[in-house]
Amino acid sequence: MNEVVDHPASHNTPDTHAEPPSPIETDALIVGAGPVGLFQVFELGLLEIKAHVIDSLPVVGGQCVELYPDKPIYDIPAVPICTGQELADNLLKQIEPFGANFHLGQEVQIVERLEDRRFFVRTSKGTEFITKTIFIAAGVGSFQPRSLKVAGIDKYHGRQLFYRVRDPELFRDKDIVICGGGDSALDWALNLVDIAQSVILVHRRDEFRAAPASVAKMRALCDDLRMQCLVGQVSGFEDNHEALHRIKVTGGDGVTRTLELDHLLVFFGLSPQLGPIAQWGLEIERKQVGVDTEKFETNVPGIFAVGDINTYPGKKKLILSGFHEAALAAFGAAPYVFPDKKIHMQYTTTSTKLHKVLGVESPVFD
Amino acid sequence: MNEVVDHPASHNTPDTHAEPPSPIETDALIVGAGPVGLFQVFELGLLEIKAHVIDSLPVVGGQCVELYPDKPIYDIPAVPICTGQELADNLLKQIEPFGANFHLGQEVQIVERLEDRRFFVRTSKGTEFITKTIFIAAGVGSFQPRSLKVAGIDKYHGRQLFYRVRDPELFRDKDIVICGGGDSALDWALNLVDIAQSVILVHRRDEFRAAPASVAKMRALCDDLRMQCLVGQVSGFEDNHEALHRIKVTGGDGVTRTLELDHLLVFFGLSPQLGPIAQWGLEIERKQVGVDTEKFETNVPGIFAVGDINTYPGKKKLILSGFHEAALAAFGAAPYVFPDKKIHMQYTTTSTKLHKVLGVESPVFD
Repeated sequence: MNEVVDHPASHNTPDTHAEPPSPIETDALIVGAGPVGLFQVFELGLLEIKAHVIDSLPVVGGQCVELYPDKPIYDIPAVPICTGQELADNLLKQIEPFGANFHLGQEVQIVERLEDRRFFVRTSKGTEFITKTIFIAAGVGSFQPRSLKVAGIDKYHGRQLFYRVRDPELFRDKDIVICGGGDSALDWALNLVDIAQSVILVHRRDEFRAAPASVAKMRALCDDLRMQCLVGQVSGFEDNHEALHRIKVTGGDGVTRTLELDHLLVFFGLSPQLGPIAQWGLEIERKQVGVDTEKFETNVPGIFAVGDINTYPGKKKLILSGFHEAALAAFGAAPYVFPDKKIHMQYTTTSTKLHKVLGVESPVFD
Repeated sequence: MNEVVDHPASHNTPDTHAEPPSPIETDALIVGAGPVGLFQVFELGLLEIKAHVIDSLPVVGGQCVELYPDKPIYDIPAVPICTGQELADNLLKQIEPFGANFHLGQEVQIVERLEDRRFFVRTSKGTEFITKTIFIAAGVGSFQPRSLKVAGIDKYHGRQLFYRVRDPELFRDKDIVICGGGDSALDWALNLVDIAQSVILVHRRDEFRAAPASVAKMRALCDDLRMQCLVGQVSGFEDNHEALHRIKVTGGDGVTRTLELDHLLVFFGLSPQLGPIAQWGLEIERKQVGVDTEKFETNVPGIFAVGDINTYPGKKKLILSGFHEAALAAFGAAPYVFPDKKIHMQYTTTSTKLHKVLGVESPVFD
């Protein structure tokens, strides 16, 4: 079971090792492990720049894996058809030689310029980095749980209102209301029914997006009176001495029912948010970061933006454009990493140096 | 046997149909059938713009197939490893739904602007087009036979000096000298030995790049005195009443020998040349065509340049950059083809319209 995403974790997620002593010093930090972030590892790797990668999701692949793991993509050049998951898997295979470190399930919260021109970065899990360059490959932003839109209920977030479950034991012998109709809502309802005192599932309609087997199990439990299912939406709440006491659920029939509860769990899926990137001092226009088309560098020297998150004249949100941007951004970053080295373009087909970097044998040319 | 290139024709070359009545009217003409030219067909196809493709080589794939059909490429995004031939084959498969017409073995010689703003184009084979847009995807230029560098001998080109064979019967009962050590030189020596009166093969050293079987066959014929093989280089010639009469061949031993001949065939391989593109009125800087980075359009409205032939700030000659350029050029071209249509970005993963264009079934979304 996975408390954050509807889709189960990829079988192909790279290991996230125990974090080394903080702060981690690195040449490049990539924010976002979607296809463009993964390919950024490759392009940096060819220039012998090692990278760390951060993503808010617990698996790599970004939108592709989050939103369409099984849906075919047709416009990756020279790949007539592949799914989002296959695309991510192929990119992971391609970047294997470069041994990038992944820091998943956390988002960047602080970015500060140091006196030596490097950046200090801290994530939501407290991982700290000192890096020479940053590559924002954050797509449409980090995927955050969609919140319950009921005025004033926010103040119970983390105490009685939860969008993810960290420790199921918190709910032992409690009266629980779970909102949502997807896999996360159903999985947690089925799981907590044995732990909580009572479980009521609230969904706006009597059809569920969750796996049919989960829905059938839930209905059987309702028939056995071991849990309840209610069609409606949370329309208000009552509190008492700073504690959430009751919620009001208005059904399709227009009738509002009141439910007593200890905890409210909401699983409305994920929606992308730009998040703390908005506070980094970057020029942002309609949630997109402005870049040049030579290096895809932002207005902050040393910070590059590639893929769907950037904007420039002619920009199209195509994965193949992100690949091009990652290549040019890597060349743009090289002077920050190797200030005294002249960087020459080399080709993977012919360069024995790149063959060494890629860990492949150089063919003998006649 | 193939008189133009060292590599035999691809098994996967698209049909070149009998030419329809001239001039062919089209929305888009792509000059160059390398990977970027092929992907240009795809990006135009997604926007429902049909294209014709011209290439000077007799097969598709451009440099990739010409120079490294069997060498691995590692930097095509999401394709950890492929050969040049596989890359071309995958792209051909990807563009299959769009039924582009290929006109191979010919190069563009004339481009003229018509009064209605379209372009008139004529190739070296006399194929004529009237097109709304042109995409130059000509890489490093068209591959032309390397010429024999002997002062004054040029004037016999096409009469007694040949870089390709159109009709072997021209050489019946003649005294022939063939220069070169690759497959073309050997293949023609072996072929003409039964047609010509005499064949002498001249190569600068006693090792040959040609297929070992051809070399063995040639050596056997020499042993049988049915042909001769001479190590050396053409260093001069003698003529007589405007006819090439004798050539001088200087050997590694410093000795110059004189050979009588009727015809001289030279197969020194191919080298890329910008060719007539230089006369189209485009801004050209060091053999590269300047473009913007929004549409990859040249200084001539309606003519776009993509891939290795173009230049702009930050340009790297990477195939993946050419793919990006082709995508943006397609969007840039759409207003010339559909002046009254508003073009919306759509995704191959989700657009039922694109699924129809691609000829695939749309999945059912929940």
